[in-house]
Amino acid sequence: MNAPALAPSLRRPVPQACLDALAARFGDRLSLNASVREHHGRDESPYPAVPPDAVVFAESTDDVVAAVQACAAHGVPLIAYGSGSSLEGHVLAVEGGITLDVSRMNRVLSVNPDDLTVTVQAGVTRKQLNNEIRDTGLFFPIDPGADASLGGMAATRASGTNAVRYGTMRDNIVSLTVVTAQGKVIRTARRAKKSSAGYDLTRLFIGSEGTLGIITEVTVRLYPQPEAVSAAVCNFPSVDAAVAAVIQTIQMGVPVARVELLDTATVRALNLYSKLTLRETPLLLFEFHGSPAGVEEQATTVQEITREHGGMDFEWAVHPEDRNRLWAARHNAYFATLQLRPGARASSTDVCVPISRLADCIRETNADLARASFPTCVVGHVGDGNFHVQMLLDPDSEAEWTEAETINRRMVRRALDMDGTCTGEHGVGLHKMQFLAEEHGEDALALMRQVKQAFDPLNILNPGKILPPPTR
Amino acid sequence: MNAPALAPSLRRPVPQACLDALAARFGDRLSLNASVREHHGRDESPYPAVPPDAVVFAESTDDVVAAVQACAAHGVPLIAYGSGSSLEGHVLAVEGGITLDVSRMNRVLSVNPDDLTVTVQAGVTRKQLNNEIRDTGLFFPIDPGADASLGGMAATRASGTNAVRYGTMRDNIVSLTVVTAQGKVIRTARRAKKSSAGYDLTRLFIGSEGTLGIITEVTVRLYPQPEAVSAAVCNFPSVDAAVAAVIQTIQMGVPVARVELLDTATVRALNLYSKLTLRETPLLLFEFHGSPAGVEEQATTVQEITREHGGMDFEWAVHPEDRNRLWAARHNAYFATLQLRPGARASSTDVCVPISRLADCIRETNADLARASFPTCVVGHVGDGNFHVQMLLDPDSEAEWTEAETINRRMVRRALDMDGTCTGEHGVGLHKMQFLAEEHGEDALALMRQVKQAFDPLNILNPGKILPPPTR
Repeated sequence: MNAPALAPSLRRPVPQACLDALAARFGDRLSLNASVREHHGRDESPYPAVPPDAVVFAESTDDVVAAVQACAAHGVPLIAYGSGSSLEGHVLAVEGGITLDVSRMNRVLSVNPDDLTVTVQAGVTRKQLNNEIRDTGLFFPIDPGADASLGGMAATRASGTNAVRYGTMRDNIVSLTVVTAQGKVIRTARRAKKSSAGYDLTRLFIGSEGTLGIITEVTVRLYPQPEAVSAAVCNFPSVDAAVAAVIQTIQMGVPVARVELLDTATVRALNLYSKLTLRETPLLLFEFHGSPAGVEEQATTVQEITREHGGMDFEWAVHPEDRNRLWAARHNAYFATLQLRPGARASSTDVCVPISRLADCIRETNADLARASFPTCVVGHVGDGNFHVQMLLDPDSEAEWTEAETINRRMVRRALDMDGTCTGEHGVGLHKMQFLAEEHGEDALALMRQVKQAFDPLNILNPGKILPPPTR
Repeated sequence: MNAPALAPSLRRPVPQACLDALAARFGDRLSLNASVREHHGRDESPYPAVPPDAVVFAESTDDVVAAVQACAAHGVPLIAYGSGSSLEGHVLAVEGGITLDVSRMNRVLSVNPDDLTVTVQAGVTRKQLNNEIRDTGLFFPIDPGADASLGGMAATRASGTNAVRYGTMRDNIVSLTVVTAQGKVIRTARRAKKSSAGYDLTRLFIGSEGTLGIITEVTVRLYPQPEAVSAAVCNFPSVDAAVAAVIQTIQMGVPVARVELLDTATVRALNLYSKLTLRETPLLLFEFHGSPAGVEEQATTVQEITREHGGMDFEWAVHPEDRNRLWAARHNAYFATLQLRPGARASSTDVCVPISRLADCIRETNADLARASFPTCVVGHVGDGNFHVQMLLDPDSEAEWTEAETINRRMVRRALDMDGTCTGEHGVGLHKMQFLAEEHGEDALALMRQVKQAFDPLNILNPGKILPPPTR
């Protein structure tokens, strides 16, 4: 697999003294094993693995400090690694160095049900968190497709299906504990719900993809489990009609908890993979949270809206089992669609536009996809104006990769022309760096570079990510 | 008035060449008039005025660029000024220089009702905005006490009574246009609802109080005007009982739009100032937004909660006139309480704590206030764990200022001990600088200083604010 092409290797040497220092501290939690390195050199993106020189397994913030100090002393790159589920090449060791695996930092440190907050170590995953707090009657809503770690979700400013109602990681993180490039441990904020006390370091680290500091603890907001939940599926004659229904729902201020678009190809894949019997047309998957009366009121309103837009078969999933099965299927969409072409790898793109332009953006993108020489699927967190295209590619065909990259570039430029963003929730990683200047302008990008330079002057933290090399 | 004491003057010279450059560009929109300078050298804080050397009235982003360039060329301080309603000395020209008044930048630039966004110039005030968009059926919820400018509200990360439901400026700003200290114009984000594309410059400028760049345009989220609104007043036997009712309301997830605490002194002041007949006990002022059935459901739940906590007289304000009168009175609380002691100036403090500690924090603070030698009032956006104390001081009594500062320091330290913040919404300005190291730690403060140094290496943007001088 040759594409998307990586820049010629910029690997920096890792001096033996650095490895010795790490070995002294970490013992057998330092691994030079080829398969361990290979595993940590890739994510769910189509990029081929670029393994680090070694992998260190951290179990505490102190461990992270030790790893940062060893790398800082020798100018060695250090790449934070949570669950490896990122989609844009975030964790590839493009300049070599050490990968810092925080998945063993998996303790829930303190639950504060009265304040609706919880503090966890960075390696705790979203499913683990919700399992551990179930008895409190609270839940954490942010749900990217994978069972990602909270640290990784913070680092990529992740969101998911519930963001339309509950917001993204940006909105739901109260405070972070971060190890700086100098090996200092800071806490970015207190646990108060709001503050005007100084620069928003919390938000600066959220979405910084490990390039400004290593997140070791995360305090997030929790929500009372809704008294009532209902879900519904509605088929539509076209993607256009489905999107029009969503736009009207949002504009009327109906507080839907989730509204997901699946195109026909995705529905077909889910039926195959998750043994469902969904009618194979574009469909919207809704979820409503609230009091029993509130949920019924929302659902009635939405049902009327869908009918106006040609929606058919507004079908309820009332039983929790049915509902969970449906949403589990939605979360497995990525893996399900992979089965549409055995042996394929997916290029999964991600744009977000103002919702008034969503129908245009998807329609124009579909015109491109109709001409593609490989299978594609469209799914979307459409209530936020965010959608994804999965392109199922033959890993050995350079022609297909080139074609996919052309579609991706056209889709991103289309989103930017509509005042949208090149990534709604996946992050920049390696793959979206090429669009950052176009999205933000060179002067804003220069400010971002100044932040990076100020926080990490040796450029040891996940180097070669987010910020493209200056062109002027 | 001598206290709170200002550091010895650090005024920097303003070279004639700088004034000449400004005069050439701004003509009679450059003012050296003493009363204009005096007016721009103070805010609503108790600090005595520290006037700038000159005031420039900007009418466009280009004007702001010109002012920044003139100041940058001569190393002259430049202080952005919106409506002058800040409370912690934000706009005082403590190092001299030029004040940049943006109040004439008061145009609503584009309303996008389909996307629930609006873009305004920085000088547009919150009331003006809501007047201009009334016909769209949408509204902008953030409402600090004063009719502040959107630019100022962004710069101080303001919130207000609706934040418990709609969030703060942090949550509601989509994008900013900012003039950097180098005179470059950047836009911090696209108009998509969410993005993972790079460092969050938007949030970095929000709350930066004019020290990192000059905000010239603000794009904010709007909300559909709720179908139904109702308000209610409930008296309580004690502040403790009222706060306990609020905590339970929040913990149950009731989506109240507003819940304000007023102590007995404040209620008395409102009755006098706004000619109301509220019963003079601690009270909570609620507002509910939603569908007619949803509002009724919320109100019923809250009424039950208040009853459990000894609430009396759950009284409805059903008619919009009654409701608006009540909320107008609440917004005038600052001015109303000033009347409790004619000739007094108010020291208005602001802390925010995790809601589980709110009752403790207010109770311990009230013990201090009971011993104060001047009138005091407590009001709070208690749903957020945020409350204010107004201390009505004789401007000529140094003893009273010293006493007030002691109470303020004790209150802030109490909030910090409870994992709270030294300011929930007023900002740092001059008055809270002393607590920033305690709140964030020296290492986090060092990062903030690095951001300031990177963005404004000449230290011309509102110097002497937010960041205390390093102690090590």
